[in-house]
Order: sequence, then structure tokens, then C-alpha cells
Amino acid sequence: MGRQVGRPLTAQTLAHSIGARCLGDGTVQITGVASLDIAAVGDLTFFSDTKHRAAATNSAASVLIVREVDADIASCTRLIHPAPHAAFAAALDLLFPIAPLRAEVSPLAQVASSASVDGARIEAFACIGERTTVGSGSVIGAQVFIGDDVIVGENCRIYPGVRVLARARLGDRCILHSGAVIGSDGFGFQPTGRGWRKVAQVGTVIVGNDVEIGANTTIDRGAIEDTVIGNGVKIDNLVQIAHNVRVGDNTAIAGCVGIAGSATVGARCMLGGASMVVGHLSICDDVIVSGGTLIATSITQPGQYTGVFPTTTHREWIKIAAKLRRSIKANPAPG
Amino acid sequence: MGRQVGRPLTAQTLAHSIGARCLGDGTVQITGVASLDIAAVGDLTFFSDTKHRAAATNSAASVLIVREVDADIASCTRLIHPAPHAAFAAALDLLFPIAPLRAEVSPLAQVASSASVDGARIEAFACIGERTTVGSGSVIGAQVFIGDDVIVGENCRIYPGVRVLARARLGDRCILHSGAVIGSDGFGFQPTGRGWRKVAQVGTVIVGNDVEIGANTTIDRGAIEDTVIGNGVKIDNLVQIAHNVRVGDNTAIAGCVGIAGSATVGARCMLGGASMVVGHLSICDDVIVSGGTLIATSITQPGQYTGVFPTTTHREWIKIAAKLRRSIKANPAPG
Amino acid sequence: MGRQVGRPLTAQTLAHSIGARCLGDGTVQITGVASLDIAAVGDLTFFSDTKHRAAATNSAASVLIVREVDADIASCTRLIHPAPHAAFAAALDLLFPIAPLRAEVSPLAQVASSASVDGARIEAFACIGERTTVGSGSVIGAQVFIGDDVIVGENCRIYPGVRVLARARLGDRCILHSGAVIGSDGFGFQPTGRGWRKVAQVGTVIVGNDVEIGANTTIDRGAIEDTVIGNGVKIDNLVQIAHNVRVGDNTAIAGCVGIAGSATVGARCMLGGASMVVGHLSICDDVIVSGGTLIATSITQPGQYTGVFPTTTHREWIKIAAKLRRSIKANPAPG
Repeated sequence: MGRQVGRPLTAQTLAHSIGARCLGDGTVQITGVASLDIAAVGDLTFFSDTKHRAAATNSAASVLIVREVDADIASCTRLIHPAPHAAFAAALDLLFPIAPLRAEVSPLAQVASSASVDGARIEAFACIGERTTVGSGSVIGAQVFIGDDVIVGENCRIYPGVRVLARARLGDRCILHSGAVIGSDGFGFQPTGRGWRKVAQVGTVIVGNDVEIGANTTIDRGAIEDTVIGNGVKIDNLVQIAHNVRVGDNTAIAGCVGIAGSATVGARCMLGGASMVVGHLSICDDVIVSGGTLIATSITQPGQYTGVFPTTTHREWIKIAAKLRRSIKANPAPG
Repeated sequence: MGRQVGRPLTAQTLAHSIGARCLGDGTVQITGVASLDIAAVGDLTFFSDTKHRAAATNSAASVLIVREVDADIASCTRLIHPAPHAAFAAALDLLFPIAPLRAEVSPLAQVASSASVDGARIEAFACIGERTTVGSGSVIGAQVFIGDDVIVGENCRIYPGVRVLARARLGDRCILHSGAVIGSDGFGFQPTGRGWRKVAQVGTVIVGNDVEIGANTTIDRGAIEDTVIGNGVKIDNLVQIAHNVRVGDNTAIAGCVGIAGSATVGARCMLGGASMVVGHLSICDDVIVSGGTLIATSITQPGQYTGVFPTTTHREWIKIAAKLRRSIKANPAPG
Repeated sequence: MGRQVGRPLTAQTLAHSIGARCLGDGTVQITGVASLDIAAVGDLTFFSDTKHRAAATNSAASVLIVREVDADIASCTRLIHPAPHAAFAAALDLLFPIAPLRAEVSPLAQVASSASVDGARIEAFACIGERTTVGSGSVIGAQVFIGDDVIVGENCRIYPGVRVLARARLGDRCILHSGAVIGSDGFGFQPTGRGWRKVAQVGTVIVGNDVEIGANTTIDRGAIEDTVIGNGVKIDNLVQIAHNVRVGDNTAIAGCVGIAGSATVGARCMLGGASMVVGHLSICDDVIVSGGTLIATSITQPGQYTGVFPTTTHREWIKIAAKLRRSIKANPAPG
């Protein structure tokens, strides 16, 4: 439950790679990483939040990334960097390198004869549909389904059990986590005298470059036009994105969010966990929606928006809720 | 991101098929569909919402479906129909026909020798369990798991990666989207002095005819009796339906909804996105639950029910929430 | 939709096995189970809730489990037990025994040569990664993916379509339902001038003994340290557990719950359906969170906590919501 063991590097080598200055013994070997409070000999860690000052001073880590102003906080080898957390993230990429791709098609995969998968890796029990293209450097994990007429860009990583249905398009460097479904039918029905009539969903899903899509997240194909996910969008697990939604570049969407049909979310927005966006709305760029908040009207001004009932003990909640209900009866508003 | 290309038809042929009257050049070829504002030459589109009047007049579409009263709104070929949206939906089925089924069992599927799959299509890496029946005309997609003693009706479409576990029954013409799980164990435990004891879940799931179930939706098997989904029910993505729930005919359930154990939902209800129904409740027929609303008591009168905190700027929300909390302390209600 | 047929037993044999006393004809055969109100000849059922007294008296069940005090409620064979529901649960295990494991590796599975799967059952189209260990008595269902360097304990049951990614560890007797994803990357990004930069997620997921994880639930791997699920934890369907979360022993988490990154939930807690826990919080032992409630501050006292807007007719809700919004404007609070 503690430290993670990576590829060994010396402090000096790492400092050079991440653009830090090394104070102390540069020959010390870094063999793993851990948080400040549990790091041990061989570990790299970082310090930037002043509330962890004591932990930094007492840390048993071999190497600590710190700001210049904190250079004296510990006596181990220190790597001086203006942004310790970012430098630590860069170090992770060096200590835990992704294994180089072996481009090969598993004999246990089913690849349509009209598909193009040159330079890609296709793992066991994956299916690649007719006329589909998988770009060079991409990994199609085990048990992934890629339908007909799909385009997967270059250097994508599609984890086991993802489904990308017919005609969807993914840009380059996308990461799709296990169980994500891209291109399921939108929820489109018309009422009739005898129940609901399905409306064919003939659009598809267009995903930009550098998009990450979380585990078991679902993105429906468009009804007529396409559902569009912009470049650099990051989507967490168990998110539902309905048909015709458009999400602007570099927006981040936390877990359990739902965006209903035909809603538009701007660029650089942040949707907190379990927030919901009602259909056909428009949210402008640079909006932050707090977790658990339901957005029921369009938003035209950047800023943070919130709407959750304050949580309290169940006993107090009963009183507040009763009072709210009574108030409307005592003072009926017009309408 | 725009128009979708379908099977070409002439305006006159389409008019005849959908029961519309053709005004203007009936020989024009329809080669695709698009929304009113982006439709181009060759496209079919429709007009019914008066706020899009200007878009209709200016549309470059080749063929427009309109009501009689709007026949003069554009000069392209028009198809006159009393319900343009419904007529457009019918046209989609003609322009984007589903490929005829090739009944065959992939040599890469695993079909139990005691299963019956005559007239069905079973794709690669699918599993069909012992004594299971798949009806004629049904498609079992790649990587689908159908357990033992399951009945799948006729003309169903089970998308890649669906799991239907032991003894579940699906009616005819059901559509299950990727990642849906039917028949997982209900959440049934009894407290003991040393933690929770699992209660065997011995019921199953019974799904009616013409049911659509969204991507990554889960429907648990019953504890003793069965979980029952009525005819014509439409369920969106990432919906959780717990053990022993009963959903009445033609009810529509939007994305991210949860229905807790042993709740009963009537016929022709509409549950908005991310609404929740508490366990053991009963909701009568013809109830509309607004998105994000938690239903915590039974509902016996048709109508619309709502309970979401109004959303505002985060700054205002802090004030409202504080005031709510204070109010209870200033004016303690009895109890 | 009614009774479930199990392995036949006599009333006397069952009474002996579950520690009950048999009143009446002990030779009667039990062939199935059903609820009190629909039970028929051959069925076992139970009575413990006094509001079902009439149903018990009128039940056509062959055998009824009741408390001593209710021994006279019916004339059929009765099994006297101080906890009828618990005794019924024990009876279910006898009437519906799990088929004995046949330890074998399907020729259609892909098992790495460095994996150890002695005494386990590996079904079709499953993948077992390099250096992975699957304990004796465990079942790896069809289409399951187990990555490299994973440890699965003994007597686990992994249902079809589960994904357990690299380096995760599962204890003994765990049950994972279809579509669950264990070890997907946490949602870790750093802002840069040109969008988000992914932070490598180098931790993993450690799951204790006797844990049950629901269908399509997702548990992310830790960023640096591990995500930890304690012994005896029960997690329902469509739950999202983010990176670095720790859940204490014997906590129960209902469907559609989200727990954000680095939150800690104590032991013996119960999180109601669709409740949400904000990141970096700590919830102490023995806390009950009501369904639909968002926990936005740490909780240090055991008890029940609630925060959901009271639901009413849509017409009344509009008035309450408007009044709430107005109140803040009429009486501006400081801040």
C-alpha cells in the first residue's frame, strides 16, 4: 500500500531530465516514489504545501523536489524546481516509462480484411471492423470492439473492453479506459398512441486529439449531426454524454456527470462530480459547475455555479425540509 | 460533423413511402439528411418548430418535410405531412436501412451444444450458455455473454459486450446497448456480528417486448421473485435498476437514473436524468419525475414531481445555504 | 415471475441444517421458495414482519419459518427459529447450492505462460496476464481481463466481462460482478498553458477479503499510493471510487455512489444510493449517509447525515425555489 518501485535513476540524471538543480549527493539512486509521510530510502517525493512542512523535515525520502525557498527544509538530496508537483509528475514519466509498443496483431484477434492496422498493436479477442483504420503506435487492448468504418488516430491507448461503434472517429493520443462505450444509440423516441417509436440515430461521435475517457463512461452517437468532444477534453469514469452534445476544448468532466441531449458545454469548463446538465442548454467557456449541481438553464457568464442542498444531521435536515415545505403554504407565491 | 449519407431515394418515392404529398420536383435525389441550418444539396430535412422559420426559408436542403400550413416556407421540393418530425423519423428508416441479417454462428464464438440459435446471428467471441434459446432474427454481437438457461426473443439486437446472466428472459425486438448487464446479483446482505452475510439472489430478470436498454446500464436479478421490465420500456445509459424492481409498460427512464430495491414504477412514467427512486416505494402510472429529483415517498397521483436545489452562482449559493441552516436554529421546529 | 425451483429437501432435513425446530409434518418436500403472498405447494417462505400477518395465515406455502411466538399463525409445517429472515437466507444456500468448481482452463482463454492458475477455473475468451496469480477455487468468468502482476485470492468469483488491471490485488472470497473495472487510471491532470497534462498513475488497487463489487462499478488505481478497499466491504452497481480512496472494513456502498479522490471512508459506514463524497474528506466510522446526499465536509461524529431538497409537485417546487432565491436578495447575508 506504500511506495511504488520504478526504473532506477540517479538524482543527478533525473534533475537534468526535469530541469531541476541538484543540491546534495547527486549519485544517490532513486528506485521508487511515495508520499512525503511514508517515503523511505530510495524514494523520490516532493514538497510544496506548507501544511506538510513537518513531514518534509522528517521524511526518510532519499530525494525531495522543493522550491528554492524551501531548499533547507531537509538534508537529503534536493531537486530545486519552481513547480515541485509538476516536476514530480515529469519524474513519474521517467521512473515509470510506458513499455515500447510491439506492433503486432494477436492471432486471437478478429481483424476485418478491409481494415488498416499498420504499426498498431491489436491484442487478444479484439475485433476490428470493416474499412476501419487504426493509426500507427496505437494499442487496441484485449477484448476491445472497434466497429465498421471507424477511425482511430495515432498513438492512442484503448484499454481492454472498450467499445467504439460504427463510424466513430478518435483523434491522436486518445486514452480510453476499460468499459467505455463510444457511439451507442442516443435516447431518441417519439410518442405514439401505442408507446414509443425509436428514431434512428444516424450521426456518430467525433473525438478530438489528446482526449481521455474514463472507465465505463458512455458517449452516444448523434441523432442527425454528430456528438463532438473537443481536443484535450478529459472525462472521468461513469460519465454519460448524450446524443448531439458538444464539449469544447480542454474541458474537464469529473466522475458520474451526466450531460443530456443536445447540450453544449464550452471550452475550459470544469464539471464537478455528479453534476448534471439538462438537455438543449448552452454553457459558455470557463464555467465551473460544483459537484452535485444540476444546471437547468443556460449559462452565459464565466464563473462558478452551485446548487446542492446543505447537508446536516438527518434530524436537522427533517426540520429544514419541513420548514421549506411549510413556508410555501403559509406564503403562497403568485403562480 | 454534418450531414449523414444514406441510401439514395427520390423525393417522390420517399413521399409515397411515408404517406406525404410531394410539392415541386419529385425526381430530385435525396442522398443524405441534416439539420435545417446545415442541410445542403441532396439533403432531406424537416421543419415544424416556428422559431426555426428563417432557417427553413434559407435552407439549402433539396427536400423539406413540412405541414400543409407551411407549404410555402421554401421553394425546394416539399413533402407535406401533418407530423413532420415523425415523418422524418420514418424517412430515416428508409434512408438508413438496417442491413439484412445473415444468420450464422461465428467460428470464433462459443455456443453450448444444448443451446438453440436457429436463425440467429452470433458474432465473434460471444458465449451462449447451456440450454439457452436465441430467437430467429436476433443478433448476438461480438463479445456478448449470454449465460445458461436464458431466453432471448426474436429479432433482438444485442450490441457488443452486453452480459445477460443465467435464467434471464428477454422478449422480442429488444435492443441492448454495449456494456449493459442484465441479471447481476442484487445487493442483498444481512448484518451479522462480524460484518455482512450475502443473501443468495435466486430470482432473475424478465424483460418484455420492444424494450431498449442503454449502454452500461445494470439490471439486477430478483432476490426471491424476479425483477420485471414491462413491454415497450425505454431505458437510457448508466441506469441502475435494483433487485425486485418492477417497471410498467412504456415507461421511459433517462440516463443516470437509479431505482432502488423492490420499488415499483407504473406504466407510461418518465423518469428524468439522474433522478432516484428510494427502495420499496410505489409510483403510480403517468408520473413524470424531473431530472435530479429524489423520490423518497410513494406517489399515488399522476403529475410531475420535482426536488432540486435551485442553482445559482457559488457566491449566492453560500448565502442561501447558510440562511437555510441558520433558519432552523433560530426557529426550531418541533421534533 | 414467481417461485424459484431449487434442490428438493424435506422440512425436517432443512430444519436440522439451519438449526430450527420443526412443527408439523417434517416429511413434506420443499421444492422451491417464494414470497409469503405468492407461495404455493412445495414452497418454503418465512414470516417475521407483523404487517404481513394475514398473508402468513392465508399462505399456501408448504413450509413457513417463524418465530416461536408466531408458531400458531399457520397450520402448515413450521420451522421455529429466532431470526426467520436469517434462517431463510441460510435455507437459500442449501436449496440453491453453487455448483462445485471444475478447475480447468478453457482452450479458448489466453493465459500467460508466467501466470499461475492452479486449482482455478478460467473460462472462454478470458485473459490472464504475465506473472499473475489466481488462487485455488476461484472462477475467472468468460471475457474477463486480468492484467499483469495481479493477485486474485482464493475462492473468488469474477463474473463475465470484469477487468482487473495491472498490479491490483484481490483478497479471498471476493465477488466481482460483470463489467466492474478495477485499476483504471485515476483522474489526475495538471493545468498547463495549453490544456491538461496527464499525471502518471503509479499506484494500484488493494481489495481485502470477502469484498463484493457490483456490476459496472469502477475503482481507480492510486496516483502514488494505492486505493484501498477494506475487508468485508460491499459495493453495489455503478459506483465510482476514485484514486487514493480508502474504505474501511465492512462498509456498505449502495448503487450510483461516487467517492472522489483521496477521500477516506471509515469502517461500518453505509452510503445510501447516489450519495456523493467530495475529495480529500474524511468520514469517521459508523456514519450513515442518506441517499442522494452530497458530503462536502469531513464528518467526525457517527450518525446519519442528510441533504436532499424535499420533493413535491413541480408546481409547488417552482414556488419554493423562487422563494429561496428571493430570500437571499431581500435579506443579504454578510459575505
